[in-house]
Amino acid sequence: MTDSCLFCGIAAGDIPSVKVAESPSTYAFMDINPASDGHVLVIPKRHSRDLLDISADDLVDVTSAAQRIAKAAVVAFDADGVNLLNCSGAEAWQSVFHFHLHVVPRYADTTKDRLEVPWQPGTTGDPELIADLGNRLAASL
Amino acid sequence: MTDSCLFCGIAAGDIPSVKVAESPSTYAFMDINPASDGHVLVIPKRHSRDLLDISADDLVDVTSAAQRIAKAAVVAFDADGVNLLNCSGAEAWQSVFHFHLHVVPRYADTTKDRLEVPWQPGTTGDPELIADLGNRLAASL
Repeated sequence: MTDSCLFCGIAAGDIPSVKVAESPSTYAFMDINPASDGHVLVIPKRHSRDLLDISADDLVDVTSAAQRIAKAAVVAFDADGVNLLNCSGAEAWQSVFHFHLHVVPRYADTTKDRLEVPWQPGTTGDPELIADLGNRLAASL
Repeated sequence: MTDSCLFCGIAAGDIPSVKVAESPSTYAFMDINPASDGHVLVIPKRHSRDLLDISADDLVDVTSAAQRIAKAAVVAFDADGVNLLNCSGAEAWQSVFHFHLHVVPRYADTTKDRLEVPWQPGTTGDPELIADLGNRLAASL
């Protein structure tokens, strides 16, 4: 825990939140700036900064909790789909530097869903660049 | 495995891909429509449709592989951050209906990074609606 971390304060109960679920290692609560109706954040109770920093055990626990919540949210809110999103680093849109996984129910009804597609998947990349990057990454693993 | 599934074909080696990594239960390869330089997809070899359908074990394996690849990608490509994204359901931008986790390295350099922010996190939601939805979800778990 770090004294100045908003999400450590929420997990500890020192800062109020609308709690959705809790386990010994995880805490889930409603996002107060929701991208859609029912937008939940799942965090490890133990502080970690991002995907590069979180322990393997905490990542498993957070992901399993997120799956359970996603399934329940689709039923409870009659959603049409769901996104999981993690943002690691300011350049990746992270604004609170305590690992969190967004669980975002999705709806055809745009009064409940304020998301815009983050990229146009129809744009084919340069095959040579993709192969070069892939081979470099594979060699580094 | 389903005969008509593109990603089952890729995992089986019947359809070509730029492979990044493989384990007994997972396969990781380069996205041919990359949102950024170094965009990787991680899939379970066993067919599942989406987050609502994937087994807990496969989800753990895919997530662990994605973390390992994210860490390596940030180093290999000198990236400034990374996003993990799962899209479950057409309404959530899923286009291939075999579970996949996007690992998207992020860069300040916009020649390498073509992502747009999917929502404006500064928009505060209605506190009463958020509390009502959170309480309904918590009660359904």
